[in-house]
Amino acid sequence: MKFSIDKNAFLSKLTVAQKAMAAKSNMPALTGILISVAKGELVFVASNMDISIKTLTKHPSLKIESEGVCLVPGKLFTDIIRKLGGDTVNIELEDDNVLRIMAGSSDITLNLLDVADYPKPQFDFSEHPIVLKAADLKDIIKETTFASSSVENKPILTGVNIRIYDNKLLAVSTDSFRLSKRNMTLADNYLETNVIIPSRSLNELSRIIEDSIDKVEIYLDKNKVLFKFDDIIFQSRLLEGNYPDTSKLIPTNFPVILKFNKDSLIEAIDRVSTLSSNPNATSIVKLQIEANGTINLISNSPELGTIKDTVSPVEVVTMNEIKISFSSTFFLDALKAFSSPEVFVKFTGEIRPFIFEADNDPGLVELVLPMKSE
Amino acid sequence: MKFSIDKNAFLSKLTVAQKAMAAKSNMPALTGILISVAKGELVFVASNMDISIKTLTKHPSLKIESEGVCLVPGKLFTDIIRKLGGDTVNIELEDDNVLRIMAGSSDITLNLLDVADYPKPQFDFSEHPIVLKAADLKDIIKETTFASSSVENKPILTGVNIRIYDNKLLAVSTDSFRLSKRNMTLADNYLETNVIIPSRSLNELSRIIEDSIDKVEIYLDKNKVLFKFDDIIFQSRLLEGNYPDTSKLIPTNFPVILKFNKDSLIEAIDRVSTLSSNPNATSIVKLQIEANGTINLISNSPELGTIKDTVSPVEVVTMNEIKISFSSTFFLDALKAFSSPEVFVKFTGEIRPFIFEADNDPGLVELVLPMKSE
Repeated sequence: MKFSIDKNAFLSKLTVAQKAMAAKSNMPALTGILISVAKGELVFVASNMDISIKTLTKHPSLKIESEGVCLVPGKLFTDIIRKLGGDTVNIELEDDNVLRIMAGSSDITLNLLDVADYPKPQFDFSEHPIVLKAADLKDIIKETTFASSSVENKPILTGVNIRIYDNKLLAVSTDSFRLSKRNMTLADNYLETNVIIPSRSLNELSRIIEDSIDKVEIYLDKNKVLFKFDDIIFQSRLLEGNYPDTSKLIPTNFPVILKFNKDSLIEAIDRVSTLSSNPNATSIVKLQIEANGTINLISNSPELGTIKDTVSPVEVVTMNEIKISFSSTFFLDALKAFSSPEVFVKFTGEIRPFIFEADNDPGLVELVLPMKSE
Repeated sequence: MKFSIDKNAFLSKLTVAQKAMAAKSNMPALTGILISVAKGELVFVASNMDISIKTLTKHPSLKIESEGVCLVPGKLFTDIIRKLGGDTVNIELEDDNVLRIMAGSSDITLNLLDVADYPKPQFDFSEHPIVLKAADLKDIIKETTFASSSVENKPILTGVNIRIYDNKLLAVSTDSFRLSKRNMTLADNYLETNVIIPSRSLNELSRIIEDSIDKVEIYLDKNKVLFKFDDIIFQSRLLEGNYPDTSKLIPTNFPVILKFNKDSLIEAIDRVSTLSSNPNATSIVKLQIEANGTINLISNSPELGTIKDTVSPVEVVTMNEIKISFSSTFFLDALKAFSSPEVFVKFTGEIRPFIFEADNDPGLVELVLPMKSE
């Protein structure tokens, strides 16, 4: 294996692949990145078994003198390439499983990992990919993954449930204290599909999809999902099991419907939530609508004191006296999921879940369960 | 105690004082900030016993309705003030050691700490302050503190030794593996002084001195030093003991003197130091001048490989074959202490300390001890 290529073209594809590499592993080969050059193409593959990424380039600067494949120590190799001077990097596989890298004023020899040990991931393309606008996919990820569970004792809740039927897509996530639900109409009809994609995979995917990307092809398999865009293939395992039915959780009758300026409400909740005796714990905020229509946000700590803020909605659709307590973190997360500058908050009752909706975010519902206030 | 003041004026003085407050302490009162209003002045005092800060303001917006003093829980109070809406903050000491804060839409009651428990620091002004340009003081701090020790088993080396005699200032710091020395001529003659100021205090001080500050007055006492600028008084304890005599450490005879472009050399050392099997450990880099005048930087790890970089000096003053190994971290720290774009590196011998100097940084010498290469 011997080739040369423009350093920046090389680095940009390498840093994408590197995101799938294992930082540590019982299988040291998984901390490596597979490099292969053949048929005028340079390919990187990395995998931590949950996520696998394949990036390829036919950059005009790529000059292959001899084809081949090798497994580089991923982090060290990426660090080295990132720091290289010069415009062109020259790479050559030497005897004894050693890679020689030459660029600018640098001459580097790097001990390689054994290609034979690498559990090379299979990238399987099913038929009939679902095609989404890249921006829509990133929106769905931003709107849902935060509401999934971060604890592993309910593995199925660490993912986002994606259902496709006819020309509809429904994405749902919940950690059982809050729920995020996004409906979307698709451009085509697709076969019915129901999968759970790990939130961690989706967040990693979102970071890789650059703003210049237009569309993403999604290939679903029994236990894998594959995303294809640009010259990048991103594959994730799926979570196995039946996602809980959340369709009946969302209330439909709301004695209180208020429309708030999103940023003002975020500031007020943030201010009131300052009063937490434990900085790592979520603080409980109480929203109280008085008989005269005043809306107060209150947090109270016997040791520290009391913070009260008065908030004014931009619109009162319907209003009643109510007193409801909730986690400030969940309330803020829900608000921040919206891109609209104004958000409806809809309350059913003091111990009933309440929801958020917004005119400019059609199809998005955020739900939060109240907490018992002391 | 009852007063009102412009919120931003209040916050700017509060956040300076807050830096001296203890995050945790056996004496809970030290996690507080003392607020007093009297004679048209608002004063904040905070102290962690090592550092004490007093800030005062007579901001035109300050309206004192009644004088008084109280001890607020420092972190919580600062967090609250930072997040307040509105332009003006109204503060009133209520019965039962409770503070009421009103601003914008917020109405807050805060339980206070007991003023009686506060070990109120004394700010002592000796006669004849030393007056330094603020920019010079910040330079000295930047050039020296990094070379002091961060381990507490040699307490005296965790500070910077400052000596003043006639119209000269000499600042020295060393962790016994490297040394930083800065000479400066002062505008006036001063009495002979020899103190050791904790590096941590100096770094904290440097962060507080804003670029708008012109001069700093320095008042030295037996075991305290006090810096006065703007409406801020910053006091630090001194370290006790005799600082080691380092005057004979710096070699004077250099068979190798090379002038490098600072940024290029930093990049090359950084590149070569990538090869460290332990990412937290410092890596050893070898500089090797060959008979033909080629200058190589080399790092080598039997497990990982070898990185070699060839560097070209911008000027060779004198040159000989040499092979010398050093910590890449110490070498980089020394280079970064200079503001000059070009830096002289001067070698005496393979197992002798080597030094850095630069034309545009008169009075500054950085010294590094070599390491044994394997």
